[in-house]
Amino acid sequence: MDNDVKVKLEQFKELVRKIRSYYEAVALLHWDLRTGAPRKGAEVRSETIGMLDTEMFKLQISDEMGGYLEYLSNPNVADQLDDIDRRIILDCQKEYERNKKIPAKKFQEYSVLTAHAQTLWEDAKENSDFEGFEPYLSKIVDMKQEFIEYWGVKGTRYDTLIDMYEPDMTVEKLDQVFSKLRGRLVPLLEAIKASRNQPDNEFLNQIFEKEQQEKFGLFILEQMGYDFEAGRQDESVHPFATGLNPGDVRITTHYLLDDVTSALFSSLHEGGHALYEQNIDANLAGTPLAEGTSMGIHESQSRLWENMIGRSRSFWERYYSDLQQHFGPQLQDVKMEDFYRAVNRVENSLIRIEADELTYNLHIIIRYEIEKMIFNEGLSVKDLPQVWNAKYEEYLGIAPPNDGLGVLQDVHWSGGDFGYFASYSLGNMYAAQIINTMRKELPQFEQYIANGELLPIKEWLTDKIYRYGKSRTPSELILAITGEDLNPDYLADYLEEKYKEIYKF
Amino acid sequence: MDNDVKVKLEQFKELVRKIRSYYEAVALLHWDLRTGAPRKGAEVRSETIGMLDTEMFKLQISDEMGGYLEYLSNPNVADQLDDIDRRIILDCQKEYERNKKIPAKKFQEYSVLTAHAQTLWEDAKENSDFEGFEPYLSKIVDMKQEFIEYWGVKGTRYDTLIDMYEPDMTVEKLDQVFSKLRGRLVPLLEAIKASRNQPDNEFLNQIFEKEQQEKFGLFILEQMGYDFEAGRQDESVHPFATGLNPGDVRITTHYLLDDVTSALFSSLHEGGHALYEQNIDANLAGTPLAEGTSMGIHESQSRLWENMIGRSRSFWERYYSDLQQHFGPQLQDVKMEDFYRAVNRVENSLIRIEADELTYNLHIIIRYEIEKMIFNEGLSVKDLPQVWNAKYEEYLGIAPPNDGLGVLQDVHWSGGDFGYFASYSLGNMYAAQIINTMRKELPQFEQYIANGELLPIKEWLTDKIYRYGKSRTPSELILAITGEDLNPDYLADYLEEKYKEIYKF
Repeated sequence: MDNDVKVKLEQFKELVRKIRSYYEAVALLHWDLRTGAPRKGAEVRSETIGMLDTEMFKLQISDEMGGYLEYLSNPNVADQLDDIDRRIILDCQKEYERNKKIPAKKFQEYSVLTAHAQTLWEDAKENSDFEGFEPYLSKIVDMKQEFIEYWGVKGTRYDTLIDMYEPDMTVEKLDQVFSKLRGRLVPLLEAIKASRNQPDNEFLNQIFEKEQQEKFGLFILEQMGYDFEAGRQDESVHPFATGLNPGDVRITTHYLLDDVTSALFSSLHEGGHALYEQNIDANLAGTPLAEGTSMGIHESQSRLWENMIGRSRSFWERYYSDLQQHFGPQLQDVKMEDFYRAVNRVENSLIRIEADELTYNLHIIIRYEIEKMIFNEGLSVKDLPQVWNAKYEEYLGIAPPNDGLGVLQDVHWSGGDFGYFASYSLGNMYAAQIINTMRKELPQFEQYIANGELLPIKEWLTDKIYRYGKSRTPSELILAITGEDLNPDYLADYLEEKYKEIYKF
Repeated sequence: MDNDVKVKLEQFKELVRKIRSYYEAVALLHWDLRTGAPRKGAEVRSETIGMLDTEMFKLQISDEMGGYLEYLSNPNVADQLDDIDRRIILDCQKEYERNKKIPAKKFQEYSVLTAHAQTLWEDAKENSDFEGFEPYLSKIVDMKQEFIEYWGVKGTRYDTLIDMYEPDMTVEKLDQVFSKLRGRLVPLLEAIKASRNQPDNEFLNQIFEKEQQEKFGLFILEQMGYDFEAGRQDESVHPFATGLNPGDVRITTHYLLDDVTSALFSSLHEGGHALYEQNIDANLAGTPLAEGTSMGIHESQSRLWENMIGRSRSFWERYYSDLQQHFGPQLQDVKMEDFYRAVNRVENSLIRIEADELTYNLHIIIRYEIEKMIFNEGLSVKDLPQVWNAKYEEYLGIAPPNDGLGVLQDVHWSGGDFGYFASYSLGNMYAAQIINTMRKELPQFEQYIANGELLPIKEWLTDKIYRYGKSRTPSELILAITGEDLNPDYLADYLEEKYKEIYKF
C-alpha cells in the first residue's frame, strides 16, 4: 500500500471512530430516556440528543469525509484496500450522498422532535390520546416527506423509506411477497379457526409475580448465550435492543403481570437482536459495519429466537419444568403439551407484539399498507385511527376499543421509523428460510433445543450471519446461506406444518 | 442593547448551550459506567468519553469562543449586558484562558486515561492492589504536573490545583485555616477519648436487610425535598451526585449490610449536593452558571444535610421510630438517645467516608498534606502507601492493614481530582458558619427538624445559596449570608458543643 494511501486511510478511520463515539453517546442518551431518566429532564435531554445527533450528521457529510471518500474510492487507490475497508467506504458513501442535501438545521429539528415525541407517545398511548399526539406525528410525517424530496425518490416515495431499513428492497417486491404470503396465510387461518381442537389458554389468566418472571427471563437469556458481561436487561414501555459498542449490547423487556410469557418472549426477541450484535467480528468494531446488515436480517434473528426456538415444542420439553418451578403451584396442574399449545394459540388480536406467529404477519401487512397510503397516496395523519380501525376490522375481524390499543400501540412512528415494519415479516420469512438450511446442516437441531444446548445453534448463526455484521448485504447473506433469494414459501410451509400438528387438521 | 450586540450575545449563548449538551452526554456516559455499564464495554466507553470530552474542550477554547469573549468583554459592549450575562462571560473566559495552551491531544489522552483509571481503581481497591494501579496513578500525576505548567503556576504548584475547586483559595490560607482548626480539634479529641461516657454502638453490629435500608433512604430523601421527578438514586462503589441537566440531578449510594446508617448518610450527603443543583434558578439553565459555585460550597450542603441535620438529636427524635419500624425487631430494644449517641461516636478510624464529624477533618488534612507533598515537594506516587500509612499512624494512631482500606479508598485520584479533598473540610466550616446564621434567622430550626418539617430549611438554603448557582463566588456568598469571611471557629464551636453534651465533660 502506498504510504500516502496508508496515511489517508488511517485519518479516514479516525474520523469513522469519532462518528462511532457520537453514535454511542446518542444511543446511551436514548436508552436512558427510555429506561428511567427523570421526567423533568426529558425536554432538555431531547435538545441534547438533537445537538449530538446533528454533530454526528455533520461529520458524516463533512467536506473532510467527502475528501477521504473521493480519494479512497478512486480505482487506483481502492485496488490497494482490502474488502472490509472498501465496504466501510461504500457504507460511508451511501450516508454521505443521501444526507448531504439535508440542511443540518432541518436534521437537528427532526432529531429533537423525534426524541421528544417518543416521550410524549408514552403518555399518549397510556391515555389513548391520539388527538393530543396528532400534531407531533403530523409534523414528523411532514418532515419525512421533506426528507424524501432531499434524498431523492427511487421508484415510489415509500421506496425511499423502505430502502433505509432493507437495502435493495422495493415496494414492488414487497407487494409481491406479501401478496403471496397472504395468499397462503388466509386459508391457513381459516382452517385453524374451523378446527375443533382449539388450545385452551385460560390457565394463563393468573397473576404471575414479576420477580419470578424476571428471574426466569434472565435464566433463558443466559441459556441462549447472551453475554451479561457485555450487556444488561432493563425495563421500558416498549422493549428494544441497542448496541452501544461491541462490548455493550443492551436489551429491555416489559412485564405484564397477567401474562407469564409476554416479557419472556420479549427477552427472547431482544436477546436474538443482541446475540447478533454481540457476536460481530472484533475486527469490525469501531466501524459502521459493526451493526446488523439490515433490519430484516436483524428481525430474522429476533423472530427466530422468539418463535422458531422459543415457541417450539422442543424448547418447552426442556424448559417447562423450570418455568413451573419458578411459579410454585401456579402451573403445577398444567401439562407441558397444553402449555405448548396455549402459547401457540392463534387468535385475531389487537396488539402486534402479543400476536401469534401467523396473524403477526397480518398486523405487519396492515401497517405496510397504511404507511404506503401515507407516503404514496397522501393519507392524512388525522385519518389514521379511522383507517387503522377499518383495516383491523377487514384483516382480523376485530376493531380496537381505543387508540391506545390501536394506532398508538407502537413506538416506531413517534421515532420517525416509517418503513421499518416490513422488516418484521421479512425477518419471519428470512428466519424460516435460514432454519430450513440449518436443519440440514445441523441435523440435531431439535435435539439440541430439547437438551437445552442452545450454544451450537448460536455458533452456527454466528458463523453464517452474526460475525459478518454489515460487511455482507442481506441478499448476499441469504443467497450464501440458503442458495436462493428470499422465498416466502418457507415461512408458509413452516407455519402450515406447525399449526396442522397443533390444530390437528 | 445594540442590535449587533444582541445578535452576537445570542450566538455566544448558542455555543454555550452546545457545550452544555456535551457536558450532559459526558456526565451520563460517566454515570452509566459507575452504575452498571457492562464490563466488556468499559474500554471503548473510556475512548468515547475522551473523544466527547475533548470536543467540549475544543469548543471552550475555540477561536469562535475567543472571538465572542473578546467582543462581549469590551467595556462598551459589557455595559449593555446584565449581571448574569457578564458572569457567564467571565466564567467562559476563565476556562478559555486556562485551557487554551493545553494541546487537545493531551487533553484527550488525559480524559481517556482518567475514565479508564476509574474503572481500574474499582478492582484495585477491591483487591488492595496498589502496585497494579500505581502506573496509572503515576501517569495521571505526571499529566497533572504537565497541565500545571500549561495553566501557569500561581503561588505554589498545588495552588493551581486548589483554585480549580475553590476559586480564590490558596495553600497559604488553607495552611492557616487547617492549622487553626487542628489546634482546636486535637484537644477536643483528647477530651473525648478521656471521657468515661463512651457511647456504645455494639447494637449496630447486625445485618440490616438491604431492601429496608433502601426504602428508608428513599423516604428520608423525600422528606428533605429531593425531587424524584428530577432525579433518581442508584448504587455505585463510591457514592456520588451528578447534575446532567436542571431537571435531572442524580445521586448514588452504596449499601453495607452490617451498617444501618452508612448508605443512609451517603443518601443524605449526596441528597444535599442534589438539593443544591435541583434548586438553581431556572434562568441559569443551559449556562455554565447552573452549577454549584465551588466544591467547598457544594460540600457545605452535603455535609450540612448529612451531619448537622442527619446526625442531630432533633432529626432522630423525629425519625428514629420510622427507622425502627423498617427493621422489625432489630432495633426495638435500642433507645433513641443511645442510637443518637452511637451514630455520633468519635473513633479513630481508617475510612474517610465512614468517619465521625470530628476526625473526618483529620482524614482531610492528611490528604491535603500528601497532595501538597506530591505537587510542591515531588513526593513520588510509589511512596504514597508508606506516607499514607505513616500519616494515619501519626494523626489517628491507626495504620491500615492493606491499601484497599488505606491509600486506595477514595475514587478522587483515579479521576485526576487532586486538590478536591480540602473542599470537604471547607464544606464543614462553611456549613457550621451558615448554620450559625440560620439559627438566628430561623429560630424554629431545631423544632422544624424535630417535627420532620425539613422543607423550610431547604427553602432558606435555596433563598440564600442554591438559586444563585455559580453566579456568586464562594466568598461573596459567605459574606452576604453570614456577614464575615470563612472562619473555622464556627465549626470548632459547633463540634465542642455537640460532643461535650454527648460525652458529658
